[in-house]
Amino acid sequence: MIRAGIIGGTGYTGIELIRLLVMHPEIDLAVVTSRRYKGEKVSKVYPHLFPFIELEYEDVDTKEIAKRSDIVFVAVPHGTAMDYVPGLMAQGVTVIDLSADYRLKKAEYERVYKRKHKDKEEREAVYGLTELHPEVAEADLVANPGCYPTGAILAVAPLVKAGLVSQVVFDSKSGISGAGTEPSETSHFPNLAENIIPYKITEHRHVAEMRNELGVKVSFTPHVIPSIRGILTTAHVFLAEEKKREELEAIYKLFYAGKRFVRLREGTPSLSFVRGTNFCDIGISVEADSDRVVVVSAIDNLVKGGSGQAIQNMNVMFGLEEEAGLWFPGLVP
Amino acid sequence: MIRAGIIGGTGYTGIELIRLLVMHPEIDLAVVTSRRYKGEKVSKVYPHLFPFIELEYEDVDTKEIAKRSDIVFVAVPHGTAMDYVPGLMAQGVTVIDLSADYRLKKAEYERVYKRKHKDKEEREAVYGLTELHPEVAEADLVANPGCYPTGAILAVAPLVKAGLVSQVVFDSKSGISGAGTEPSETSHFPNLAENIIPYKITEHRHVAEMRNELGVKVSFTPHVIPSIRGILTTAHVFLAEEKKREELEAIYKLFYAGKRFVRLREGTPSLSFVRGTNFCDIGISVEADSDRVVVVSAIDNLVKGGSGQAIQNMNVMFGLEEEAGLWFPGLVP
Amino acid sequence: MIRAGIIGGTGYTGIELIRLLVMHPEIDLAVVTSRRYKGEKVSKVYPHLFPFIELEYEDVDTKEIAKRSDIVFVAVPHGTAMDYVPGLMAQGVTVIDLSADYRLKKAEYERVYKRKHKDKEEREAVYGLTELHPEVAEADLVANPGCYPTGAILAVAPLVKAGLVSQVVFDSKSGISGAGTEPSETSHFPNLAENIIPYKITEHRHVAEMRNELGVKVSFTPHVIPSIRGILTTAHVFLAEEKKREELEAIYKLFYAGKRFVRLREGTPSLSFVRGTNFCDIGISVEADSDRVVVVSAIDNLVKGGSGQAIQNMNVMFGLEEEAGLWFPGLVP
Amino acid sequence: MIRAGIIGGTGYTGIELIRLLVMHPEIDLAVVTSRRYKGEKVSKVYPHLFPFIELEYEDVDTKEIAKRSDIVFVAVPHGTAMDYVPGLMAQGVTVIDLSADYRLKKAEYERVYKRKHKDKEEREAVYGLTELHPEVAEADLVANPGCYPTGAILAVAPLVKAGLVSQVVFDSKSGISGAGTEPSETSHFPNLAENIIPYKITEHRHVAEMRNELGVKVSFTPHVIPSIRGILTTAHVFLAEEKKREELEAIYKLFYAGKRFVRLREGTPSLSFVRGTNFCDIGISVEADSDRVVVVSAIDNLVKGGSGQAIQNMNVMFGLEEEAGLWFPGLVP
Repeated sequence: MIRAGIIGGTGYTGIELIRLLVMHPEIDLAVVTSRRYKGEKVSKVYPHLFPFIELEYEDVDTKEIAKRSDIVFVAVPHGTAMDYVPGLMAQGVTVIDLSADYRLKKAEYERVYKRKHKDKEEREAVYGLTELHPEVAEADLVANPGCYPTGAILAVAPLVKAGLVSQVVFDSKSGISGAGTEPSETSHFPNLAENIIPYKITEHRHVAEMRNELGVKVSFTPHVIPSIRGILTTAHVFLAEEKKREELEAIYKLFYAGKRFVRLREGTPSLSFVRGTNFCDIGISVEADSDRVVVVSAIDNLVKGGSGQAIQNMNVMFGLEEEAGLWFPGLVP
Repeated sequence: MIRAGIIGGTGYTGIELIRLLVMHPEIDLAVVTSRRYKGEKVSKVYPHLFPFIELEYEDVDTKEIAKRSDIVFVAVPHGTAMDYVPGLMAQGVTVIDLSADYRLKKAEYERVYKRKHKDKEEREAVYGLTELHPEVAEADLVANPGCYPTGAILAVAPLVKAGLVSQVVFDSKSGISGAGTEPSETSHFPNLAENIIPYKITEHRHVAEMRNELGVKVSFTPHVIPSIRGILTTAHVFLAEEKKREELEAIYKLFYAGKRFVRLREGTPSLSFVRGTNFCDIGISVEADSDRVVVVSAIDNLVKGGSGQAIQNMNVMFGLEEEAGLWFPGLVP
Repeated sequence: MIRAGIIGGTGYTGIELIRLLVMHPEIDLAVVTSRRYKGEKVSKVYPHLFPFIELEYEDVDTKEIAKRSDIVFVAVPHGTAMDYVPGLMAQGVTVIDLSADYRLKKAEYERVYKRKHKDKEEREAVYGLTELHPEVAEADLVANPGCYPTGAILAVAPLVKAGLVSQVVFDSKSGISGAGTEPSETSHFPNLAENIIPYKITEHRHVAEMRNELGVKVSFTPHVIPSIRGILTTAHVFLAEEKKREELEAIYKLFYAGKRFVRLREGTPSLSFVRGTNFCDIGISVEADSDRVVVVSAIDNLVKGGSGQAIQNMNVMFGLEEEAGLWFPGLVP
Repeated sequence: MIRAGIIGGTGYTGIELIRLLVMHPEIDLAVVTSRRYKGEKVSKVYPHLFPFIELEYEDVDTKEIAKRSDIVFVAVPHGTAMDYVPGLMAQGVTVIDLSADYRLKKAEYERVYKRKHKDKEEREAVYGLTELHPEVAEADLVANPGCYPTGAILAVAPLVKAGLVSQVVFDSKSGISGAGTEPSETSHFPNLAENIIPYKITEHRHVAEMRNELGVKVSFTPHVIPSIRGILTTAHVFLAEEKKREELEAIYKLFYAGKRFVRLREGTPSLSFVRGTNFCDIGISVEADSDRVVVVSAIDNLVKGGSGQAIQNMNVMFGLEEEAGLWFPGLVP
């Protein structure tokens, strides 16, 4: 059994890791931290996890965690992960960081996130979009992608890699769980219900990841919708030349051959079909007499857009079956 | 024109008063207070009110307010209203208090709300359930009823007053706006969506108002539902003797004759039909071969259950048409 | 008093006309038709309208309706309106058609809607986007705009008319009431809740209206969201040259000067702020170092996107105050 | 491996059986029927099941199904199951019927459901409330309980069996998935969102099951709430004598000792905690100075209230671990 630790076990990313890892056939969940709840039973703070986890939350002690873990998931806010990653790496433990701290080169990180990177080294983290980065298998530090970039990049990567794309406008709609467990004006039910709220309309930082991976002209605007989970990304793709739907589908099928978590859909993708799962559903629509193609992708932001992809990366890193612990259908209805 | 002031103009009760008063044909809204936002335009803090109100929020100064108002609505939290009411009354201004501070006799208030009442006098506030208390017309202080008691009492008053009731169980379901503007664990969208949450299951303080008004054995349990507005109350009424539906309907029709805000429904009441309005819709179901009758009432918690009823009381107090400013259909769908 | 008739009084557009017209100070609602419910009281079929309307639904008889009406609102499905409009016009009555039947020239209509236009004449209907078409004042037939075009065109018209725009991608999100009163797979609660569904992704017919009015390169993709009312349109606008936010705001302010239903917002528009109202809220975001500007508009699809705008047009046509019957704040929360 | 068949594989009960059975370690799902979709791939009709099931829907042929199955789940509407059960039983196959057809004695069934029972025999079906009926282990026909009775009976059985209860009022709130896959007025999003709808207020047929199992005075009123899944039942229990919370908890703990799907909660049960699971969460509240105790239960109507409990019964019938295929945490958030 592989021993796993989680730093930051009370956010949505943390409890989703727990939900998935307690069912994982090859994993022994050994330690979960929380400063706020240390000493309390995890299943008391989050009753849906009873009786699947016996552990109590512990304070963060990277040395101690590294000793008891073969792999550590760092599920703390952006800017805090870099406090722990160096210490963990120094102990020789494998790390998957779910924050943004290692997704970009340090200089780019500092420019985009407008803060000093506290890690003294420039670490070679692999960007953990598993389908596109097989080198995850060799990594000892994986930077798990942002939720929006996961759905956006998977939606258009086949077309971009084929050199067909001149410009993309990503218009994304996310369930509010992406904003975390902390109550806020936006997550206040009377404000979000019967509404849809665009935010960081021209300045969301996730666009940096998209541009890095895609290398074409990318625009991005996110919205939150009155749903708990899921991200639907509508990618308005402008092609260098018009293509038929069949040609495009062939490109996608070839590109994603053997990638079992990407499902090409004939119909329209839907948040329902991926609810609770690690799938990314993709559908293609071609506009008649136009250079526009619309690719829609649907993911569960907390699974494929977060904790599930992290476990998928772990599976690849440890030579397990890529689907281990992640192979189940969505919750419909 | 009657000059109105609002103390506490940023909560849901306050902004609902504004929404209604700016459209009221006989009212000049003269002053609105907020400690937090003093000096800011009301319509900047609450953009839906633009351009219907020119006022800026002011700090609370009861003397100043009393000077510029013929009537003052006190829309501050329980326990705070009693800080302002004595000063306002001393200035001779008419007051409608939307908090719980004057709904019960002082001794009962202190027992139920577990705090000392700060008013030095035992004031003769009229309990402003308008349909049941015509003496509102003569009052200079009205204690506006709680949202739950409004729907619950109206549902069963005709049967109780007819001496038919041996026991009532009120099971109420409220939109989350009843919990206020402040984000909380309960109002956090991921917690409330796809859920229904009972709270204060055997100990909600509103039961005191119900018992006072009804004088029979009353049980009460509230829940919040994933909706913004509305309270649906399911009153399980146990009768001293079985009655036919027609007999019961006749009792209701007689009791509510001329009460235009109470609508007896043949079908099932629904939050939709009363959305945004001052109506209380009521429907009666009789169980076959049983002493149980179920009366369902639906109100908008912020209108008939709060600010609308306050304005209805004002209309009665000032000799206006009872429906003035409140006579419009609900927002369906 | 102006006498109004409604052909098609059971759809959402029809009952929204009723909701607004019964409160309109200059209107006497004289006749409402429904084949299905003829002979039944309107307020029995739609209880929220009790007791605001005494009428019973009548069968459609254009001669009879024209005799009893000064203006007729045609609120029947696309393809059916053209059955009634010629007869009404022949009687000399003023008509506002809320369907798509008269929004496009006949040839274009037949191409876009893929059906034969049944009207024998090419009528000179004025496209009733009131803010952009003052010639509504002289019209005897107004083609009320589609819900999506209303929000989309208002969002970008100032920039387009200033010659600044090279391309627009409209990504619209609509409440499900736009799909009508008839239950369907899409409107089935378990399918739509916790979801967002794109549809007619590259082929929605409303794009024809947008292109007609704007005359620039336009792409359009609609989605339905788990909300009842409202359309939020995210307009990704690509400019011929970069502009500062202040310059753009100045353009909008000038363009919409005196247009009281268009509200330029400093913050982000929201469906909540316009709920139940005839407002169109607009907000502008400029992307740094980019040719992209994002303009977000929010309307209530049934009011400004339908029945409200129809009444606004009627007001203009009859020389009433443009805001008559439409001047009230939104339902927040 | 045990071979399972499903008659009626397109309703919510049917697809939930599939979702769970394809992951069950001891089950080989051998046949799924649908008259409407025969010949089509299950995973094409329900894309969330791709690629977990290869089967195509087949027409119903009880002989053929019995030959290829060790157990058959009958998941067709009330009144139809009795068309298939006799034929299946005649072939010697084990049957779990998820409809109401075998939950009551024939005479009672005919009285409650107001239709003739078509089965010629009075079969000895075991009522499959697994925690209360260990004789399920010996059954060859199990009548799976209704969704409401499951939550209601589990909530109060310990008190009733202890002889403490004089009367119970069950006020239940259900997600709309309980009403099935067919779009209807009630499930139409604009009607249910922002609403809560009581129905069959004094006459829901499930009360018969509750009375049979409990044998005390029972009242029952169901509501649908704007949620997809889950039933929260608020049981207002009137005791013969007042009891302390500690005494009641001790009774529950003893009663449900070893019943791992029943979780006694210190806090309030919530639909979220049981979402997608076979758990029944129960919480107890004691009213001060009163004979009323409120017991709240929460289940997922499609799992513990339907397909999950059916599988739990199958596990017991076949001597498998009772939790097999059902032991996983809920989907939170």
